Formats: sequence, structure tokens, C-alpha cells
Amino acid sequence: MPRYSAPTRDTRFIINEMLDLASYGDLPGFEMASPDVTDAVINEGGKFCAEVLAPLNQSGDQEGCTRHEDGSVTTPKGFKEAFDQFREAGWGTLSQPEEFGGQGMPHVLGFAFEEFVSSANQAFGMYPGLTNGAVSALLAKGSQEQKEKYLPKMISNEWTGTMNLTEPHCGTDLGMIRTKAEPQADGSFAITGTKIFISAGEHDMADNIIHLVLAKTPGAPDSTKGISLFVVPKFIVNEDGTPGERNGVACGSIEHKMGIHGNATCVLNYDGAKGWLVGEENKGLAAMFIMMNAARLGVGIQGLSQAEVAYQNAVAYALDRRQGRALTGPAEPDEQADPIFVHPDVRRMLMDAKAFTEGMRALCLWGALQVDLTHKAKTEEEREQADMLIGLLTPVIKGYGTDKGYEVATNMQQVFGGHGYIEEWGMSQFVRDARIAQIYEGTNGVQAMDLCGRKLAQKGGAAIQAFFKAVGDDIGAAKGEDLGPLAEALEKALGQQQAATMWFMNNAMQNPNHLGAGAHHYMHMMGIVTLGWMWLRMAKVAQAALAAGTEDKAFYEAKLATARYYMDRYLPDAGALRRKLEAGSDSTMALGEEGFATAA
Amino acid sequence: MPRYSAPTRDTRFIINEMLDLASYGDLPGFEMASPDVTDAVINEGGKFCAEVLAPLNQSGDQEGCTRHEDGSVTTPKGFKEAFDQFREAGWGTLSQPEEFGGQGMPHVLGFAFEEFVSSANQAFGMYPGLTNGAVSALLAKGSQEQKEKYLPKMISNEWTGTMNLTEPHCGTDLGMIRTKAEPQADGSFAITGTKIFISAGEHDMADNIIHLVLAKTPGAPDSTKGISLFVVPKFIVNEDGTPGERNGVACGSIEHKMGIHGNATCVLNYDGAKGWLVGEENKGLAAMFIMMNAARLGVGIQGLSQAEVAYQNAVAYALDRRQGRALTGPAEPDEQADPIFVHPDVRRMLMDAKAFTEGMRALCLWGALQVDLTHKAKTEEEREQADMLIGLLTPVIKGYGTDKGYEVATNMQQVFGGHGYIEEWGMSQFVRDARIAQIYEGTNGVQAMDLCGRKLAQKGGAAIQAFFKAVGDDIGAAKGEDLGPLAEALEKALGQQQAATMWFMNNAMQNPNHLGAGAHHYMHMMGIVTLGWMWLRMAKVAQAALAAGTEDKAFYEAKLATARYYMDRYLPDAGALRRKLEAGSDSTMALGEEGFATAA
Repeated sequence: MPRYSAPTRDTRFIINEMLDLASYGDLPGFEMASPDVTDAVINEGGKFCAEVLAPLNQSGDQEGCTRHEDGSVTTPKGFKEAFDQFREAGWGTLSQPEEFGGQGMPHVLGFAFEEFVSSANQAFGMYPGLTNGAVSALLAKGSQEQKEKYLPKMISNEWTGTMNLTEPHCGTDLGMIRTKAEPQADGSFAITGTKIFISAGEHDMADNIIHLVLAKTPGAPDSTKGISLFVVPKFIVNEDGTPGERNGVACGSIEHKMGIHGNATCVLNYDGAKGWLVGEENKGLAAMFIMMNAARLGVGIQGLSQAEVAYQNAVAYALDRRQGRALTGPAEPDEQADPIFVHPDVRRMLMDAKAFTEGMRALCLWGALQVDLTHKAKTEEEREQADMLIGLLTPVIKGYGTDKGYEVATNMQQVFGGHGYIEEWGMSQFVRDARIAQIYEGTNGVQAMDLCGRKLAQKGGAAIQAFFKAVGDDIGAAKGEDLGPLAEALEKALGQQQAATMWFMNNAMQNPNHLGAGAHHYMHMMGIVTLGWMWLRMAKVAQAALAAGTEDKAFYEAKLATARYYMDRYLPDAGALRRKLEAGSDSTMALGEEGFATAA
Repeated sequence: MPRYSAPTRDTRFIINEMLDLASYGDLPGFEMASPDVTDAVINEGGKFCAEVLAPLNQSGDQEGCTRHEDGSVTTPKGFKEAFDQFREAGWGTLSQPEEFGGQGMPHVLGFAFEEFVSSANQAFGMYPGLTNGAVSALLAKGSQEQKEKYLPKMISNEWTGTMNLTEPHCGTDLGMIRTKAEPQADGSFAITGTKIFISAGEHDMADNIIHLVLAKTPGAPDSTKGISLFVVPKFIVNEDGTPGERNGVACGSIEHKMGIHGNATCVLNYDGAKGWLVGEENKGLAAMFIMMNAARLGVGIQGLSQAEVAYQNAVAYALDRRQGRALTGPAEPDEQADPIFVHPDVRRMLMDAKAFTEGMRALCLWGALQVDLTHKAKTEEEREQADMLIGLLTPVIKGYGTDKGYEVATNMQQVFGGHGYIEEWGMSQFVRDARIAQIYEGTNGVQAMDLCGRKLAQKGGAAIQAFFKAVGDDIGAAKGEDLGPLAEALEKALGQQQAATMWFMNNAMQNPNHLGAGAHHYMHMMGIVTLGWMWLRMAKVAQAALAAGTEDKAFYEAKLATARYYMDRYLPDAGALRRKLEAGSDSTMALGEEGFATAA
């Protein structure tokens, strides 16, 4: 069976040393997150995921979910009991507001834990994960009554939540949805329509499921300006807060998917189900985007998660499996062969994974801190800065993080050779599970357009300028020191991104296809620069620790070596991506339908 | 259900126009391959694959193979009947020697057909495909008696063949095998041991299965110099050529795999099975490499195949699925949304796929021609040139072709959004099936080392110099013409490869890890340059056809546009790969085992 242990040492390094969370101790909620509390949460959370959730990952994949004739759905063996333990330990409450039963801790801790959950068992993690998304939307847009009715039970995980956007004919283009919401005399709405691809849409692990559903009221505009958000509980909640009458929503079928078999991906049929408007009529998209942005960060973390667990298994296998000899002569002459760890191509794949997972972890936790600062920083200026940066980087975290996460999972499977392809070793599952993260919550093409079509231009480019300044300042401070070579390599890559940004500015107005054809390249380029920035920051901390005579020398030296690897092997792509982007859209868009004909 | 139609127009373009097969008409076998015969074979072969094999692809994936208590294996419904049709039509005989019942046609035709088979149904195609590999080894190394006994029935596909290399503890490092071959009084050997991952190892579609097995005779050296090749039929062949007594080889289990479910991947237990030595004792590896080289080209074709069928489905979906509007304004204002084909990021993925599949098809068929010329060209010099080039490019075709094939299949799945992730649409299967090609017949890391550690240095670098000259000559001829920009872009990329080659020469002697850490990058760089070369050649033919006033203008204009796309979006990676390679192995190899510790 595949192994997993939470990378708590690295998480603590990022939180305590790179982000220096203690220095924010005077902000609300942060006072609870002292280093000893942080360490305890991380260590206990890691233990829970490794011991309770990870052992159910492969069996959950093999067994999958089962829909019964009555529309009920059974999750894989052990999931229900594990969710009971999850609920009892209060893991879902970590970063939720105290007002509704949460612990009010910084999101940094919530994100750190989310990584562990998803590495241990991505399909399982989606049940509380989707609940978090629904909680965000209700917190932001729900009425006080709705909040009081739903949030405490959702935050405690007694109930779970879902997001209902997609319909058979539309996913990305939500203006086209057909689900209807007819106003009723009692102020509720009757919801009728079909939603598909609803993760955690029906299951046997909670007493109620709170669906958040996009639908159209009569006469609403035929565009995204005509969609409204509704809360539709599986069981209508009684006055006393208990689940009451069964609502008119049912699981019509569950999908057979490439991966995340342990999560029930449902077709949900709404047949006059009772729903209540969340926020204003026709303003559903804005509410949905609140859920979506939280969810996109969570999905970015999934990219990290699958890369991490695949990496751990590949390292163990590379140290154990013996084939061939080191190119520089036998490393273990008494054995019949050397561990494949000695082969530079295997090491290249492992280093590539290490450079990604540690850099991406730093980026996700830094991002979580920005989420916190958006609400909690002392000055309006700091709050705005954090909001701009996390808005800008959300599509990068989701898009680059999951593209690269899938690539890393695939490479780690490659380390296993033929044993990676059979299901027994679990590597196939990591790849199959990782694949969905590039698709859901907006495909990575949609992320690229969110970044380039919306975020770059917002407020006259203020966000991207703030990003360039933040990275540039850290480069400036590091140049001339021992980190000079790293800083200079990153500066070159940053320069490529700045030039590409300028190219967009000068060309996309005249022909927006130039932007569309280069957006994916830009997103990857920005991902490479951003992880490089994180590596520069980590290297700086590592260098200081070594200079101060740390006892944990191996850890910090590995950080410096991995930072060098990153500069050597990741940054060169920035230049190639710029050249592709600056080629523009002419050859991309040259052919019409007939140019793609493949018939005889 | 997913669609497939054989891309016969493009195949005919490459064979008749780019390769100008008719110009080789005075070579043995080529006289039979006149353009009208070639066209008929391609068209009929394409039809057979589309109509008989493709409809069984998805059902074969869902059903898989079943092993019964007695060790027998049932293939998915319809496979047996399809194989009967395959056999009756004589598709397996196309490029096999007439002496043993083959049609003696050029390999170019055999390869063209193999692509169609594998696109239509990769799992099915492996049954005759592995047979071809076994036939190659017997042709090259078998005794006349062995050839006469086995080849006619194998070539006619009455019997199938397998390759038995891997054991539980060793795959790449064949010097470690433990399977024993004890000499018997009658001149045969008793084979005992366990072989794993044996594709097509047991099934219900043929009267006999001819296993080629690597094993060690008593006292053989404990290295690759001590392995011998044996032929071990499932049923021992009677004097009259009919299958007789059941031999001591049995299927112990079949693997549960990520994909190619329709192919039975077996654990084969040999328990004193009767086998006969093929070729010389202790020279088994050389014989195995003959099979392997043929198989590696076949696997490269699989990379193309899955990319092609995934591409065809993605084009159809992109033209059908409506979401959002073109960035330049509604393309079909009367509809609620435009087809996603209008979006530049979708078009980028489709163009990327088109540029790969057409370039890779050209490379595979050009490669097939080299295989033919190796044996059949008129002068020794031409034969040597062909042999050098195909030897050099085999790991590139296998390694780059399958890496990129998997990437393309994944991108085509991405075009489908959520519908790509559910099994219903078939896109997941293309990705899962494509994945194996990067692993078997030598992982792509092994291919990279074959290229850089062996092929580059052979005969003082004669092969790579011949390659540089061939590409350089075509660039020289194209410069100054209308194709100048293409030629110049390719020249730059070729220059990057030449510089990287020089860097290896100057650095790898001193530290072989520099070679190992850069080999994979080099293989990709060479793949990019080689496909660019094919695009230059195709563009030249297309330009001439347009100048001559062809009636099929759209086809040739699409070739030119795709060539431009290739130069814009593929070639820039050559420079980045060179920079990574020239960073050397220091940062890749810096960390020991403790540097990869992930525990707390």
C-alpha cells in the first residue's frame, strides 16, 4: 500500500520561519496561533491524516461510491467512520469564524491542514472541502437568519455543503443555465432543473446536505446578469434547527470517472425543490465567485497534495529498488545493483518534484496569509495590497499549480517503471486523482483568461505592478549577497515576464486573440517566477539559519541546493514561454474548421 | 461513443509526396508498392480499423480481461471475432517476408497500418504487435528449423508471440534475471522461473502462443553477458506442425492496470517448460534487442496513435460544444453561444496536437523507410546511412514521441472540460492507454540514456553528424526561398542541439553524471528539431503543390499554417532545454538520501 506522512517539518519551516507568523500576533485570530499552538495543530493534523485518512485512499478508489435504487449513495467502506472522527476532532472548524462555532485561527493553518487531507485522501477531502466553499458564500452573502440556520452545523461538519453550477449544456458559460426558480407565496422559491458534476452531491456521512444552487428567476436577463443563488437543503430545516421534511432534490446517477472515485459526483435533479435566495436576485454570480475563489485556492492545494504524496512514494521506491549501476561506478559494490536513486535521470525527476512541492507549499501558505490579511491587516493599504496580490495569484495557484502537480505526479509514477502502471502500488491513482484539479472550478484555460483578461488590467495594472515590486524588492535585497546568483537568475525570469506583460499591453487591444493565444503561456511563466520568488525567500531564511549555526544543518542545506536546482532547471522556461507568447495568435488562429478536417 | 476515422489523406500525403515512395520502385518489395496499391492498402486498412477495431475499444476498456481458475484468460467481448477478421484479411502479413507467407511490402505500409490499429484499439493492437516483435527476433536469430516451424503460423496470426524479459525484481537491469534454463538430453532446455508484465501473455484468440524468454543456463556469467534467449511455445509443436502437448507455462494472474485493459498483462510461471535456444548461448541480449528495437518503434507509434484519436475527438467536440463568445465578438450571434473552437486557448491546444500528430506521423513513416533501406538500399553506403539514422532516432521516436503523445492526449481531454474526466466520452481512456507507452520497452529515461550514452558516441559520432548534415542540407536548400523564416527558425534550434552536443562532448568524460542529468532534455530537444525537420520537408512539398495549382488547396495551406505554428510554438523550447542541460548535474546530484527525507 502506498505510504504517506505529512511533511510537517517543511510546513513549520514555512509558517514559523519564512512567513514568521508570530510577527502578526497582534492581528485578530493570530494571537491564538503562537508557534507552539501552530506546531501542535500541524503535527496532530498531519498525524490524523496519515493514520485515519490515508489508509482509506486506495480502498476508496477501488470500491468507489454506490448509488442505490432509492437515490441514496453509499461512500466507500470506512469513509463514514473517518468523517465521524474528523467531525469529533473539529478539524473543519480550524479557520472558521468563532461566531458560528469555528476556532477563528488564521487561514494559514486551515490551508496547511487541507494539504495533508488532500494528500492522504483527495476524494474524502472534497466532502469537507466543498462544505468550506459553501460556508464562504453564506458568510459573505447569506442573511443573518440563513447564517444562523446553516453555518454552525456546516462548520461543525454535522452537515456538508455543495456547489451547483454546471448543467449538461453549460459549465464555463453560466449565463446559459436553465434551472428555474419560481417565487412562492411563502417567500421561498421552487427550484427545477438538472445539475451535473456535483461533487459530494449525495452521500451517507452527514445528517443534511446544504446545496447552493444557481438558477434563474422568471424574466431574468438571459446572461450571467440573470442568475441568482439559492440555498436548497436536502432536508428542510425545522424551526428547532433539526432536519425535517425531505426536499425535492435527488441524485439521478453518479458518474464513472477517471479518478476521485471515493467522491460521489452526482447528477442532481431538482423537481420543485424548496430554496431560498442568497443575497440579491440576479447577483448570483458574484456570490458564486466568492465560493469559487476559495475553492480555486483549495484546488491549487490539491495539485500540491497529489505531487507531494506521489513524491514521497517515489523517493521511497528509488531508495529501495535496485537496477543498474551509478554512471560514476558502483555505489554499493557488494549488492547486485545500485538503488535507482543513483541514476541522474531519476534524481532529476525527484529534484523536480521536490522543487515544485516545497515551492508550491510556500506559495499556498503565503497565499493563505494574504487571505487573512485581506480582512485583518491593520491598515486599509495593507488590506488592499493583500487583496490585490491574492486576487492576481489565485488563477496562478490553481492553474499552474495543478498543471505542474499533474506533471509531477506523472513523473513520480515514471520512477516506478512498470510498477507505476499497475494499480497495486497506488501511483496510478495519484495521477488519476490529480487530473481533475486541472479541470474543475474553472479549467486551467479559464484560469489563464481570468489572469490575463481580467486581473492584469484591473485598476490600471495595479496588482501586477505590486507583484513586480514585491518580487523586485526581494531580488534587490538578495543581490550582492551569497544569494546573488539565485537573485540574478530570478531577475532575468522576472524580466521575461515583464516584457511579456508589456507585449500584451501593446498588442492585445488591437487584437484580443493575441491575449487569448498567449494567456496559458503567461500563466505558466508567472507560476515559474512566483515559485522562484518563494525559493529566493526560503533560501534567504535557510542561509540565515546556517549562518546562525542551526543544529538541523541537513534541512537548510537541502533548501539551498533545491533553490539552486530551481534556478537551473525551472527558470529557463520563462524565456521560451515569452517567445511563444510574443509569436502572437496568427499561426494559432490561421485555420478554420476545414483546416482541421481529418477525414479521408 | 468516441469516434475514429483513419487519417488516410495525411498518410498518403506523407508516403506518396513527402517520401515519394514510388521513387524507390526499383528496390525489392517496393515494386509492389505502387501509389495505387499503397492507396488501396491505406484506405482499406483505415476502414478495417475504424469499422472493426474502434467499436471495441471502449467496451474492451470497461470489460477488461478475465483469468479463470484453470489459468486460461478470456479477452473482452468481440476481440476474438475481430482477431479472426484481422487474420482472414491478412493484415499481419503486410511487411513480412514472402518466404514465410508474408506479402513482402515495405515497412512504410506496415507502420502506417500499425498507427491506425493502435488509434482504433491499442489494447487489441498489442496482440499482433507483440507477435511482430517475436517474429523479428526469430527472423534474425532463429535456426532455419525454428523459422520454418514458427514463422509461417505467427506471420499468418494463427499463433501469436510474446516477449518475456521482466521479473519481479528486475526489468531494466536484465543481468539480474533468475529464470533458469537447464539443458536436457534431447537438446531442449527446461525453463523455470517467473516473468511479469507479459503483454498478450495468455488469451483465447489463437491456437498457440510462442513465448520468447530470457533465461540463464547453468554457470552463465552473472551479468547481461550471461543471458540466453529461448523459444517456449504454449503448446509444443508436433512434427506435422500442429499444436501438441501443453507446455509447463501458465498464467498465474493478470494485472490491474491504469489502462490497456483489453490486453492481458500476465504473470507467467515457467515450471520446467520445454524451450529451445534461439541463437547462441549467452548472446540473448543481442537477440532481445532486435525485438526491442522493432518494438520501440511500435511504441513510438502508439504515442502518435493515442494523440491522433484524442485529437479527432477534441476537434469534433470543440466544433459542437458552445460556451462563451469569441474574444473578437460573437462568431455566431444567432446562437446562444459560440462553439469553443473560437477560443484561442482551445485552438492553441488543437494546433499543438495537429502539429505533433502530423509531424510525428511523418517521422514514423520516414523511420519505417529507413528500416527498409537498411536492408534494401542499393549501396552499402546508403544502407549504413539508413541504419545509423534509424538507430539514432529510435529512442527519440519512442521517448519524445510517447512523452509528447501523452501530453497531447491530456490536452485533448482538457478540451472536454468535465466531460473529459468522466469515462463516458472516452477521453480518459486515451490518456490512460497513452501512459503505458512512456514506460514499457524501456522507460523514457532509458531511451534518453540509449540516445546520449550509446548512440551519440557510436562510431565517433558518425550518426549524429549524419543527422546534422541531413537536417542542415534541407535547411540550406530552403533558405532564401519562401520557406526562409521556417528554415531559419529551425536552423537556430538545430544550433542549440549542436551546442548541447558539444557541451556533452566537453563535459561528460570528466563527469558522466552531466550526461545522465541532461539526457532527457537532450532527447526532447532532438525530438523538437526532428519534427521541425519533418515540418520543413512537408512545407516544401505543400508549397510546391500550391505553386502547381493543386485542387486540394485547403489541405496544403493547412500544412503551411501548421508548419508556421510549429516554428512559433515548438522550437523556442530548444533553447530552454539547452540551458537546463548546460546547467550540468551539480544541483541535480547535490542531495543525498537525507536531503530527501520527508518525515517530521
